[in-house]
Amino acid sequence: MAMDLDALRARASGRLGELYNEGELLADPGWSDAEKLTLACRMLAVDGHDTVVPGLIAVRLSEPDAFLTLPMGVGFEEVTPRQVLTIDPQLNVLAGRGKPPKAAGFLIKFLELRPDINCGIHTHALYTAALSMVDEPLVVAHMDATMFHDDCAFLREWPGNPVTELEGEIISRALGPRRAVLLANHGLATVGQSVEEAAWLALCFERAAKMQVRARSIGPLSKIDPEYARDAHDYLTDPTMVATQFRRFARRVLRSEPDCLA
Amino acid sequence: MAMDLDALRARASGRLGELYNEGELLADPGWSDAEKLTLACRMLAVDGHDTVVPGLIAVRLSEPDAFLTLPMGVGFEEVTPRQVLTIDPQLNVLAGRGKPPKAAGFLIKFLELRPDINCGIHTHALYTAALSMVDEPLVVAHMDATMFHDDCAFLREWPGNPVTELEGEIISRALGPRRAVLLANHGLATVGQSVEEAAWLALCFERAAKMQVRARSIGPLSKIDPEYARDAHDYLTDPTMVATQFRRFARRVLRSEPDCLA
Amino acid sequence: MAMDLDALRARASGRLGELYNEGELLADPGWSDAEKLTLACRMLAVDGHDTVVPGLIAVRLSEPDAFLTLPMGVGFEEVTPRQVLTIDPQLNVLAGRGKPPKAAGFLIKFLELRPDINCGIHTHALYTAALSMVDEPLVVAHMDATMFHDDCAFLREWPGNPVTELEGEIISRALGPRRAVLLANHGLATVGQSVEEAAWLALCFERAAKMQVRARSIGPLSKIDPEYARDAHDYLTDPTMVATQFRRFARRVLRSEPDCLA
Amino acid sequence: MAMDLDALRARASGRLGELYNEGELLADPGWSDAEKLTLACRMLAVDGHDTVVPGLIAVRLSEPDAFLTLPMGVGFEEVTPRQVLTIDPQLNVLAGRGKPPKAAGFLIKFLELRPDINCGIHTHALYTAALSMVDEPLVVAHMDATMFHDDCAFLREWPGNPVTELEGEIISRALGPRRAVLLANHGLATVGQSVEEAAWLALCFERAAKMQVRARSIGPLSKIDPEYARDAHDYLTDPTMVATQFRRFARRVLRSEPDCLA
Repeated sequence: MAMDLDALRARASGRLGELYNEGELLADPGWSDAEKLTLACRMLAVDGHDTVVPGLIAVRLSEPDAFLTLPMGVGFEEVTPRQVLTIDPQLNVLAGRGKPPKAAGFLIKFLELRPDINCGIHTHALYTAALSMVDEPLVVAHMDATMFHDDCAFLREWPGNPVTELEGEIISRALGPRRAVLLANHGLATVGQSVEEAAWLALCFERAAKMQVRARSIGPLSKIDPEYARDAHDYLTDPTMVATQFRRFARRVLRSEPDCLA
Repeated sequence: MAMDLDALRARASGRLGELYNEGELLADPGWSDAEKLTLACRMLAVDGHDTVVPGLIAVRLSEPDAFLTLPMGVGFEEVTPRQVLTIDPQLNVLAGRGKPPKAAGFLIKFLELRPDINCGIHTHALYTAALSMVDEPLVVAHMDATMFHDDCAFLREWPGNPVTELEGEIISRALGPRRAVLLANHGLATVGQSVEEAAWLALCFERAAKMQVRARSIGPLSKIDPEYARDAHDYLTDPTMVATQFRRFARRVLRSEPDCLA
Repeated sequence: MAMDLDALRARASGRLGELYNEGELLADPGWSDAEKLTLACRMLAVDGHDTVVPGLIAVRLSEPDAFLTLPMGVGFEEVTPRQVLTIDPQLNVLAGRGKPPKAAGFLIKFLELRPDINCGIHTHALYTAALSMVDEPLVVAHMDATMFHDDCAFLREWPGNPVTELEGEIISRALGPRRAVLLANHGLATVGQSVEEAAWLALCFERAAKMQVRARSIGPLSKIDPEYARDAHDYLTDPTMVATQFRRFARRVLRSEPDCLA
Repeated sequence: MAMDLDALRARASGRLGELYNEGELLADPGWSDAEKLTLACRMLAVDGHDTVVPGLIAVRLSEPDAFLTLPMGVGFEEVTPRQVLTIDPQLNVLAGRGKPPKAAGFLIKFLELRPDINCGIHTHALYTAALSMVDEPLVVAHMDATMFHDDCAFLREWPGNPVTELEGEIISRALGPRRAVLLANHGLATVGQSVEEAAWLALCFERAAKMQVRARSIGPLSKIDPEYARDAHDYLTDPTMVATQFRRFARRVLRSEPDCLA
């Protein structure tokens, strides 16, 4: 995946590079996949994704049929690279200590069905969870929600605990070719070409849900022009934008939890 | 109680053990009852249970007619094992300094009436308190509230300050054989086979109330399938799950308040 | 005031003393009036009273016509005992550096009109401020709001910036013989026999407003039995209860801001 | 700008000086423009303006056609004076490392059209963002919102990502001669004679939005007397008040992030 990401970045810098700071802030920090996974989990934990049962994350490795994930019992808020597991598609452990939660299976399902993505994240972040309880989709009524314009599915019924293949199939079908899905009575799932993208979308999802819950406590939402939304969607999901913001949130983690990569 | 809990753990590992990390995360940390009580109080304080008057907790000891509780004036957020009192059913102090609050009597009542439980917790956590003011029960409309499916009573009227035997009886009767009760105009009470279970349920209760208050500010809740809810209930109250999450939240306490067991 | 407070404590220990921990938690920490004022401000700042313009506090000294207050420009979150001013009823500075805000005049007004009180506090804490914008009084629908049963006035119109004698009179008249008042489009004021009482009431006021705003976002509130409310009111405003909780919140301040009394 | 600000302060001390503490709290700390910009960004980040894409700030320098701003990729929460860029009106970098975001252009537009202002700020702070989704203006229903009385515009439609000259013109026209504007489906912009004023208004804006969103979740707002509002507006935007509160919030930043000016 590292090479794909490099290609991605090269392409991105052709398109948006002139807009960005060329200094050390945009230099590739050279984080390994396990380090990116750690930083993703930590930034999400700080942002309200550290719920009663830990979230799930899966990352496709460049080796065939190999994925990174977390062992059961490890929370997003405490993960370190040394705890990260390498597993095969049947959740057998190839490297690392502990066992993955069975529910991680539905993220692996995503990765198997979608060669265009390399990372999947699932959490029950609290505002997303609240939104998931009232039979409403995530609505794009703010610029900072436009990354979900035409790119966020809504699974309207909860198919129970996501621990069997059936539920994985239902959720995968709901996601379809999109990058995000709101799961009724449950939470969110996001996917991306990179850890950065899936993490950025999960972070934005919860904040979009937070805005929506608060706005809806007043009344109905005012929609935005679909053409502008499409334009902003592309701007906010451009790989350079994604990498830039991921690194910014990663620096925030590294300032407050400086030993998280140790 | 320590022995019962061991038996519980053995049984649990027969059922769910294969799902969990077998590494050091699941090793029994060997906490004493007073240490578990301390960690329970601290994790609840961090999670919004540190209200204007401190919460209550009572733990049955393996000796007959002996319980642990906190002295009046000590907040959940500051308790240390050395402050924990040992009392008899009449609230007489058997060991430790200070006196228990009279209101602790209703938790002792729970423990006397219910030999199946060994710990009771009562708090006025703020979202639970808000929910308790609008004549609505806790509704199971999210996976992370399913631990309360058919397991959470609702006492619709406030019988006044819980300092007499009468109020203890009213609350005990409302609780019945369940593990949780929402007390109108008041707060929550949870009970469990272990400190871990009662603490986990109290933590999940406030978060469920938080989701419900936010969701209800939008509109009515969408219900979930009772069969799936029952299944998830059992999954989320399985002793191995409970112990795993209690330890995770305990680690969180120990990272930010490393001297709390000193 | 120190002597009055001692008398108060003696009386209190005759009434409720048996209920409380007699250990070091209840020993008088021996704080000076300026130290109590500092701790009061700091605990309120932590609890959401650190608003865009600093809150106000005034404390009657045992010397005639002498009061403690804060100099303009000092926030509740940063005050230290050395910054505290001694002023006369016309806001002339008797000791200390800086000048009191003119608005402090309405708290001095309270103290002049009410020989039964020795401290007044005024803040725009954010949930109280939100509640003050919707033409609703503070409603006693929760045990932790019963300290305001029959003891919280409501000034339904904002008489403008409280910088003239007229506004001070309007607010004083609204307060009447009570211990608290909700000021429409503005905030709260509380008074007490001691710094502890006024601070405790201000802290409870904002939390009561927080509960009410959240509950009202769902629907109407369920009232509680006035007789029970009266009983709980007396329990929660008993000087021993007040001193106990003030010390608990003061310890919280001292743990996180250990140099605040330096 | 430093000299203008000095003149401003002199004038202010003629009007309000007698009300304020003359001690060290009001002494000019002697911060450079880049240091003020840093403190402004940091205090806003702490207060909820640290959103998914960083906010924007532009400051006019005393040299003609020279402005300070942030390089793309730097968040309000992490900026230091050494990262601040000097740019010309066409966003060319005159000093510093990195490139400004294209969207900073609309703040430069403000400064070019309005010789009376020297600083502009734009953020998507979360409560402001929520309010911007429901087709309602910022309503002045609280004393702490009166700085926006007759001084806050409302742009009712989102003209898309603010990266072209057209959008800058639309937003500038909406702002007109006022000091603030609520941008539908987007966020806020504030301007001021000084960094202090623009920052103070941005901070107050988000808090006003927070009060309004919470109050509106209950019901309609009670308005306040326009004459009183005007009076309070002038009081709360007086340069001495602004400088006093800016320094207070700057001290808060310096206590928790003591190396931010290094």
